[in-house]
Amino acid sequence: MAKDLVNMPLLYDLYGGMLTDKQREFFEQYYYSDLSLAEIAENEGISRQGARDNIVRAEETLKEFEEKLALAARFRAIREGSSQIEKIAFGIAELNSHNYFDERIRVGCEKISEIVRAME
Amino acid sequence: MAKDLVNMPLLYDLYGGMLTDKQREFFEQYYYSDLSLAEIAENEGISRQGARDNIVRAEETLKEFEEKLALAARFRAIREGSSQIEKIAFGIAELNSHNYFDERIRVGCEKISEIVRAME
Repeated sequence: MAKDLVNMPLLYDLYGGMLTDKQREFFEQYYYSDLSLAEIAENEGISRQGARDNIVRAEETLKEFEEKLALAARFRAIREGSSQIEKIAFGIAELNSHNYFDERIRVGCEKISEIVRAME
Repeated sequence: MAKDLVNMPLLYDLYGGMLTDKQREFFEQYYYSDLSLAEIAENEGISRQGARDNIVRAEETLKEFEEKLALAARFRAIREGSSQIEKIAFGIAELNSHNYFDERIRVGCEKISEIVRAME
């Protein structure tokens, strides 16, 4: 059982609300507190296999929601888009600061970066 | 039963994948083809009350998902942010076209608008 650090954090961020409190507890210890299955089992007073089963079930639930709703793909596209926008705004701010020093352009580019960061 | 045109289209866009095919069919006739309950009932060969029940159940399911996942609020914030970014980029493009005619700024602003539109 390998930690799927590429996909699981975003799936959990989106669909974690559909898990039980217990599943969330196991999932967070495994993915966010970076505990081993043995450590989680000890914390929870269950077997290593029991801890593993809980996490696998949580992962499966998250994947099932993504199969039906595909929102992770949309969020990824939004993140990718925002990061491109931030780079372009930075480029415009650079051109402005070297050539025109127009305060309104400086403020506009800064505002775009702020909005992009708030969207993440 | 009032059509909730403010919230339902976004909830359906996000969580429609969790409805049954039948519920989607009813929902789309009501919300997107703008048919009346009587017209939907006739199309589907059921009573007006039956059509109504199907749509109410679909709406309730969508609302339950939003209660648990609250993704509509996040998508609304993203849309609001993108629309602000587009306005600012338009303002920068205007300043540029009246004052500096820097092709790189023109292209940058255009690219930002394109990305924003692709994100929606």
